[in-house]
Amino acid sequence: MDNTVKYLLGEDRLPTHWYNVIADLPSPPPPPLHPGTHEPVGPEALAPLFPMALIEQEVTSQRYVPIPEAVRDVYRLWRPSPLYRARRLEKALGTPAHIYYKYEGVSPAGSHKPNTAVPQAYYNAAEGVTKLTTETGAGQWGSALAFACSLFGLECEIWQVRASYDQKPYRRMMMETFGATVHPSPSDLTDSGRAILASHPDSPGSLGIAISEAVEMAAADPAARYALGSVLNHVLLHQTIIGQEAVAQMEMAGEAPDVIIGCTGGGSNFGGLAFPFLAEKLAGRMDPVIRAVEPASCPSLTKGRYAYDFGDTAGLTPLLKMHTLGHDFIPDPIHAGGLRYHGMSPLISHVYELGMIEAVAKAQSECFAAGVRFARSEGIVPAPEPTHALAETIAEAQRCTDSGEAKVILTALCGHGQLDLPSYGRYLAGDLVDHELSEEAVAAAMENLPVAG
Amino acid sequence: MDNTVKYLLGEDRLPTHWYNVIADLPSPPPPPLHPGTHEPVGPEALAPLFPMALIEQEVTSQRYVPIPEAVRDVYRLWRPSPLYRARRLEKALGTPAHIYYKYEGVSPAGSHKPNTAVPQAYYNAAEGVTKLTTETGAGQWGSALAFACSLFGLECEIWQVRASYDQKPYRRMMMETFGATVHPSPSDLTDSGRAILASHPDSPGSLGIAISEAVEMAAADPAARYALGSVLNHVLLHQTIIGQEAVAQMEMAGEAPDVIIGCTGGGSNFGGLAFPFLAEKLAGRMDPVIRAVEPASCPSLTKGRYAYDFGDTAGLTPLLKMHTLGHDFIPDPIHAGGLRYHGMSPLISHVYELGMIEAVAKAQSECFAAGVRFARSEGIVPAPEPTHALAETIAEAQRCTDSGEAKVILTALCGHGQLDLPSYGRYLAGDLVDHELSEEAVAAAMENLPVAG
Repeated sequence: MDNTVKYLLGEDRLPTHWYNVIADLPSPPPPPLHPGTHEPVGPEALAPLFPMALIEQEVTSQRYVPIPEAVRDVYRLWRPSPLYRARRLEKALGTPAHIYYKYEGVSPAGSHKPNTAVPQAYYNAAEGVTKLTTETGAGQWGSALAFACSLFGLECEIWQVRASYDQKPYRRMMMETFGATVHPSPSDLTDSGRAILASHPDSPGSLGIAISEAVEMAAADPAARYALGSVLNHVLLHQTIIGQEAVAQMEMAGEAPDVIIGCTGGGSNFGGLAFPFLAEKLAGRMDPVIRAVEPASCPSLTKGRYAYDFGDTAGLTPLLKMHTLGHDFIPDPIHAGGLRYHGMSPLISHVYELGMIEAVAKAQSECFAAGVRFARSEGIVPAPEPTHALAETIAEAQRCTDSGEAKVILTALCGHGQLDLPSYGRYLAGDLVDHELSEEAVAAAMENLPVAG
Repeated sequence: MDNTVKYLLGEDRLPTHWYNVIADLPSPPPPPLHPGTHEPVGPEALAPLFPMALIEQEVTSQRYVPIPEAVRDVYRLWRPSPLYRARRLEKALGTPAHIYYKYEGVSPAGSHKPNTAVPQAYYNAAEGVTKLTTETGAGQWGSALAFACSLFGLECEIWQVRASYDQKPYRRMMMETFGATVHPSPSDLTDSGRAILASHPDSPGSLGIAISEAVEMAAADPAARYALGSVLNHVLLHQTIIGQEAVAQMEMAGEAPDVIIGCTGGGSNFGGLAFPFLAEKLAGRMDPVIRAVEPASCPSLTKGRYAYDFGDTAGLTPLLKMHTLGHDFIPDPIHAGGLRYHGMSPLISHVYELGMIEAVAKAQSECFAAGVRFARSEGIVPAPEPTHALAETIAEAQRCTDSGEAKVILTALCGHGQLDLPSYGRYLAGDLVDHELSEEAVAAAMENLPVAG
C-alpha cells in the first residue's frame, strides 16, 4: 500500500523567475565567435534571427529573470508538474535507494519542450513578429512550438528531416493539428535545400540541413524569426522551471538528492533540472553528484573535443565553444532522436569543464530495457530519450543494492513515449542494434573542426 | 491574462467510494435474461467470466461502494484529474457561456479506461485469478487493461480486431510494452475464431468476434477471467469517480452546470461524469440538462430500439435490455472507434427511458472541426470520441451567443488524441466522409432482434 507517492505544488508555487546559473559560476562560458573574424559576436548579429528579449536573455548575467505573467498563464495549463517517488520500481529492483522522478510528459506536447516554446512564442509576438520558423527531427520540438504559436496567434513553419517526415507521421500530424505548416527537408523552398537536392535528389535530410533552411527563411522575412529548441543559454534558462519546482518538491519529500541523473542531447532538459540543484550545491545546502547520460552512439561529452565548432552542419551559425563530435558528424540512427546532435550546449560543456557534473554513455538496448521495466512498474511509457537517464538510475540503484546504501536518486522523466511506440516495438521484437562509436570514427569526425578559439 | 483556470483537488479529496445511481432511481434497470429460457440470469451464471466481487457490484443496490485502498493507491498515479475552465475557447467563440471540461487524458493510458481497468485487475488478483482476457478495437481499453494487469502481476491476453491490429499498431505496441500478449482477431486459437476463418480467411474482424474469442478462452481456463471495458453496471460504477471529483471541482469554481455533455459509445465515460450530477439533481441541489452525444453513423440512443438484445455479434452473452441497432449491425468505419458499438449500456438506456437525460447525434466532420478548434485554443488534442461532446458543447455555446445567455456548460474530455493523429491527418486533408444512418438501414438491422422481454 502507499506505493504511489507524488508531490504536487499548488499553482501559487509556480516559479516567478527563471534561474540563470551563469551568475553563480566562477567564470562565464566562452562567447560565440563570428565564423569569419573569430571575434565574439554582438547582439546585433543575432537580431535577424531572434527577438531582442531573447538575445538579452542569451547574454545576461542576472541571477533571476522574471517570467512574464502571460507565459506563467500558459504554463499553468500543465504546471507545476508532478514529482513522484518510484516506490514500485524500487520494490521491483529490491533496492534500498529512494528513486524520485520529475515528470514533464504532462504537457500538451508530451515533453519538456513547451517550457521554452511558450516564452519564445510570447517574446516574438510581443515584438511584433508574426511568424516563427524552426527545424525538427522526430518532431518533439516542432510540436511544442506549433502548440505555443497556436496560443499566441503566430504562424509556424517547420522544416522536418525528410526521413522522419516520411517514417514518423504522427508528430507531423500533431504540428498540423495545431495549425503549423510542415515541409520535408531538404525542400525546394530554400537555396540550401535546393543545393542539396541538386546533388542528392533522394537525400533523407539531417537536422543540420533543416536548421539551414529554417534560418534562411527567417533571415529573408522581416516579419519572421527563428526558434531553437535546445543548446542556447536562453533555452536552458527557460527550462530551469523544472529544477526550481523539483527543489521545492524534494523539500516537501523531506529528502535531498545524493545523485541527480538526466539525459543529454542538446542539454536543455538536463540543464533545466540540474542547474537549480547546482545552485543549492554551490550555496552549500546540499551536495549531490550531477550526472549526464548520453547515447553511446553520439557521445559528445564523453568522447567529443571541447572546441569551437558550428551549431549546424552547413556552417552557417556562429562558432560555439562546446563538446563536439564535429559539425559534419552524422550520428547512427538510434531511436532517441532528441539525443542525436553532434554538439553539447556551451553552458553544459562549460560546467562539465569546471568539474561540476559527470557524464556517462549508454547503449540503446540497455535504455529500452530500462524503459520497459519502468513502464511495467510505474505505469508510464517513457520517451526513448529519458530511458537513458532511467538506465543509469537503475544501475545506480543496483549499486546501492550491492553496497547497502540508501542513496536518494532524482531523475528527469522529460517526456512520455506514446508517439515513440514503434521503437519499443522493435526493441521487444529484438530488432534493435547497438552502435558504439569507435575511437577511429571520433578521430575522423574531428578532422573538419574549424580552427578557432 | 488568467486564461488558464484549472481546479485541482488534493489527494485527500480522492473519493473513497464509487456512487451507484441505481439506489436513487425510481426503478432498477431490467435484469439480463438467459438467451434460452428468457429468465433473469443469476450471479452463478456469470461466475466463469467475472470474479464474485464484480458480480456483486453488477447487481448491488447499495448507494456507495467502498473503493479498496489498493485501487485508490493506483488511482493516485494520476488522480484527482484536473477540471479546466476553457477561457481561451470561450474567447475564440465569443460566447457568454462558461465552458468547463473534466480531463481524463492524464492517465498513463491516456483515457478514462484505467478507472475501471484498475479495480477489475485488483478484484481478479484478490480472488486468485492469474490471467485476464479481453477484446479491444483501436486499443484504448486493451492498453488500459494491460497497464492495470502489469501493476497487479496478472497475465493479460487481448484479442484485437484484425483491421485495427494491422492499421493502428501504436496501441498494440503499448499493450506489449506493458507486458500483454495481443492476437489479431479472428485468430486460430479459439473455436469462434477458427469458424470465422474457415468461411472468411481474410476477415477484418469485429468487436463482436473478438468478444467471443476472449470469452471462450476465459471460460475454458479456471485460472482466467474475462474483463469488459464498458456497458455493464460495475464498469459505469467505477467511472463515477470522474463525476464525484467534478462535483467537488464545480463547487470550487463556485458554479453549477446548466448543461452536462458527454459522448456515448458503450456509455461508461458519459455515465461516469453524469451520474453523480444526476444525484445532485435528484436531491434538488442543481438542475442541469444532461445530454449524451453519439455518432450519426451509430445512433443507438437516437435511432435504436429499446429492446432485449445480445451484447456480442455471435449471440453468446445474456440478453441485455438496451437501446440497440441490432447485435449484427456493423457500424460504418468512423474514426471514433470507441463509439462503434451496436448497443448502449442498459443503465444509460434505462435512465434515458426515464426521461432523465437527452441524446443527440453528430457527424464526424463536425466533430473533428470541433477537435481542431479545441486543440488550437486549449492546447490539448482530444481523442476522436470526446470531439463528439466538444461539437455539441460548441453548438450549445454558440446558441448562448445568439440568446445572450451565460449558461454553465460542463463536458467530459475523456482522453487525448495523440495515438489518433492519423484521423486528424485525414480530416485536415479533406479525406473524411460522413455516414448518416438511413431509416432503411436501421429497420433492416432490427430484423434480427431476438424476441424477448
